[in-house]
Amino acid sequence: MSEPMTTAVLENYLAAVDLGSNSFHMVVAEELGSEIRLLDRLREGVRLAEGLREDATLDPLIEKRALDCLARFGQRLRGIRPERVRIIGTNTLRQASAAEGFVQAIETTLGFPLEIVAGREEARLVYLGVAHSLAVDADERRLVVDIGGGSTEVIVGQGFVPNNRESLHFGCVGSSRAFFPDELITTASCERLEKKVRMAVEPMLDEFTGHGWDQAVGSSGTVKAINRILVENGQGSRITRNGMYWLREQILQLGSVRALSRLKGLKSDRAAVFAGGFMILFALFEALNIQEMRFSEGALREGAIYDLLGRIHQEDTRELSIHSLQERFHSQTARNRGVAAWADQFFAAAMARWSLHGAHRQWLQWAALTHDIGLDIAHSGFHKHGEYIWRNADLAGFSRREQGVVAALLRTQRKRLPHLQFYSTLGVAAEDLLAVQRLAVLLRLAIVFHRGAQISGTAPALQVNDKDLRLSLPEHYMDEMPLLFADIEQEQENMAPDFHLHW
Amino acid sequence: MSEPMTTAVLENYLAAVDLGSNSFHMVVAEELGSEIRLLDRLREGVRLAEGLREDATLDPLIEKRALDCLARFGQRLRGIRPERVRIIGTNTLRQASAAEGFVQAIETTLGFPLEIVAGREEARLVYLGVAHSLAVDADERRLVVDIGGGSTEVIVGQGFVPNNRESLHFGCVGSSRAFFPDELITTASCERLEKKVRMAVEPMLDEFTGHGWDQAVGSSGTVKAINRILVENGQGSRITRNGMYWLREQILQLGSVRALSRLKGLKSDRAAVFAGGFMILFALFEALNIQEMRFSEGALREGAIYDLLGRIHQEDTRELSIHSLQERFHSQTARNRGVAAWADQFFAAAMARWSLHGAHRQWLQWAALTHDIGLDIAHSGFHKHGEYIWRNADLAGFSRREQGVVAALLRTQRKRLPHLQFYSTLGVAAEDLLAVQRLAVLLRLAIVFHRGAQISGTAPALQVNDKDLRLSLPEHYMDEMPLLFADIEQEQENMAPDFHLHW
Repeated sequence: MSEPMTTAVLENYLAAVDLGSNSFHMVVAEELGSEIRLLDRLREGVRLAEGLREDATLDPLIEKRALDCLARFGQRLRGIRPERVRIIGTNTLRQASAAEGFVQAIETTLGFPLEIVAGREEARLVYLGVAHSLAVDADERRLVVDIGGGSTEVIVGQGFVPNNRESLHFGCVGSSRAFFPDELITTASCERLEKKVRMAVEPMLDEFTGHGWDQAVGSSGTVKAINRILVENGQGSRITRNGMYWLREQILQLGSVRALSRLKGLKSDRAAVFAGGFMILFALFEALNIQEMRFSEGALREGAIYDLLGRIHQEDTRELSIHSLQERFHSQTARNRGVAAWADQFFAAAMARWSLHGAHRQWLQWAALTHDIGLDIAHSGFHKHGEYIWRNADLAGFSRREQGVVAALLRTQRKRLPHLQFYSTLGVAAEDLLAVQRLAVLLRLAIVFHRGAQISGTAPALQVNDKDLRLSLPEHYMDEMPLLFADIEQEQENMAPDFHLHW
Repeated sequence: MSEPMTTAVLENYLAAVDLGSNSFHMVVAEELGSEIRLLDRLREGVRLAEGLREDATLDPLIEKRALDCLARFGQRLRGIRPERVRIIGTNTLRQASAAEGFVQAIETTLGFPLEIVAGREEARLVYLGVAHSLAVDADERRLVVDIGGGSTEVIVGQGFVPNNRESLHFGCVGSSRAFFPDELITTASCERLEKKVRMAVEPMLDEFTGHGWDQAVGSSGTVKAINRILVENGQGSRITRNGMYWLREQILQLGSVRALSRLKGLKSDRAAVFAGGFMILFALFEALNIQEMRFSEGALREGAIYDLLGRIHQEDTRELSIHSLQERFHSQTARNRGVAAWADQFFAAAMARWSLHGAHRQWLQWAALTHDIGLDIAHSGFHKHGEYIWRNADLAGFSRREQGVVAALLRTQRKRLPHLQFYSTLGVAAEDLLAVQRLAVLLRLAIVFHRGAQISGTAPALQVNDKDLRLSLPEHYMDEMPLLFADIEQEQENMAPDFHLHW
């Protein structure tokens, strides 16, 4: 037997893995003062989208191809701190809702949790990645297009701030399969695909083109390939409208996916998905009236790295999202701040005994700060409305898992505390069940104390021990606040039999 | 055979029927210029709540008792115009969700549709009814308490405007059954009930007592009975705090529901539900620190009459609700107005052939004006979020049926037009199915024309004929707006096979 391998902790490293529908990407970077130095970029053409089946499962062969790739990636991630790594899944994983075993296998292989992000969150990260690849210019308005394997992100922003972002439900893999199924590329099939793209873009035209932009930038393998082909064929160093017309003509003349290999500059592993990707970009040039576009290496994974950096240095996008959520749904922020403060004191008291950690602390804070947003829909059943909003809202910076956990906490903030099994039906992952139920207990306790007249000061001391909670309540509480006592007694009943509350 | 009875149309009559959990009430009134003259008040102690069973059905015996009563009421409603009659169901009918046959029997017996309203809508109508029974004073702040059979409404308002309103989930019938099941009235059981009430009131204390009130008014049979008992026992003409203490003492001394019959001034048909109702009011006096309360005859049914009058005279509360919904959910009102205008033109064109009437026109307008509110939650699936909001929001003036219909229209505003069966699963009543699907077709058509760049002017002419729709599109459309044409073609596909769109 060999000795167990030990890995030094790589304090300043950051890493992001992008499990895209066409390719998997990984970026490893080092934080040096206020700079980021990219150490490593890896790309493998896994083409995950090809494995997606009608029943939302994945073809086991493709799963294996993906896991083999991740095993290689995983080696490079060892020793990096968990809070400095993000593993991001996009369109194909969003759709492969029945591939639970695969998600677990990914996490086991990489050793880090997977975040499946919504399309517009993907768009936000793409913009962030691209914006950091451009000259620092806080005023410059930028159009960014990223043609992924399963979705296409279109974003207009200024400086580092994405203002309008949209995720369209088609990418180079799916479009190539759907519009050129027999590998023939005809004018008619190209026009059908272009029309589809233009129809999808139509409702957002006003919003996107309203203020115009100073420069259009494309990321993704499709844009890179187009750019290279144009350069190698003497069509200029940028992607121009004329260049796009020229290339469309070439593709139609070649007439089949197979014949595309004759295109000077097109790599062989790109050929299978190139026609669909090209026609999407062509249609976007037409629909958005783009004159010229440059290619940027920056993309989702770089965006994820910069987003991580923001979190580490107290510019967490998620805090801005919480704030905007409170504003949008007219949440009573004074009481919510009280609930959040007390929940955090209870959390600090329970953390060690209940094996809770930093991420859990954030989940609890997000829930406490927004626990009453459902009131904006209706008073009756507001906990369910809050759950609905968290589950469905487009919240910059949050993964689906995080949104699902906070949704579950809002849902179970009142009435009887449910058993672990119920959290499972709410979509909480098996490994989070115990922590989420415990967070719900802490949240509820903080809410109970803030139900009635304003209460101030610090929360009473709390001791927890597995299923027992003991509150040290000041003597005068019982006399001065009989109703609070009735509420605490009610809560004692509501959290039984899973937890026993004493005081 | 006798000749069919003919009834003259009673042009200026208005009527409201309140199918309460304890009593059924009916009010018939005549509109004389700007005045309302009450012609008739009927009350029958049906005690519908007693028939509510665990499985959300109703005891057939109680159903029969209710329908016998409504047959008598129904005779008085003949000849009144449908738009001047409201039949309102409250708590017991809210809970009797499995009693569908009964709801149909009610409508058949009365000859008018039944509206089951949410608790807070009930509170609004109660306030309106009570406020109209008081001196006209736009500045006077009023606390109104209505203790129903199955719920208790508490409202604070100013003049005719209810500002804070709450519907508590207990009334005199349920509380009497739950807290005095063996008919014994003990100090302990009274205190348990009082505590329950105070705990329910606690979260809203700040909001309700914040600005105080100039006068406290109670409606409902419970308050009327308390008032009469106090008067007949020389305890003053208003309900005072001292009077409440005195009466509580009397009730406890009597010690049983049966013995309450010895209370001077208590009618025999009130005795069974009096103890629960009294203890609720007693707890509210304590919790809200009420010093004195007067009784008002005004209640839900009068509120419904005044609300009807508002609708007839263009002060429809529902329009204010739509406006507030648009504001609350940041809806793009310019485009929505366009969609609403075109939907209305299409409606006018289709109305006769498709047997649509005035209520349907309103449904379509409400849907058109708010079709995009779901965007405030998220872009992805916004039609479902819009449906969720309409289904759950607390919207003054709307019945559950109306909210359900608009929710269904929002849900089916895009993608493939569903078959009638799907509308049924969305909760649309059998008799509304065809109309709602047709309204969906008109709404979708109006939306299609407003998807892209701003379109103005009037809608193209539309002819409908059962399943066929023919649009007269100007010649220049095809050339100038190829994308619009693609959208219309897509819509043609989406509405098949149930409808055939031509142009």
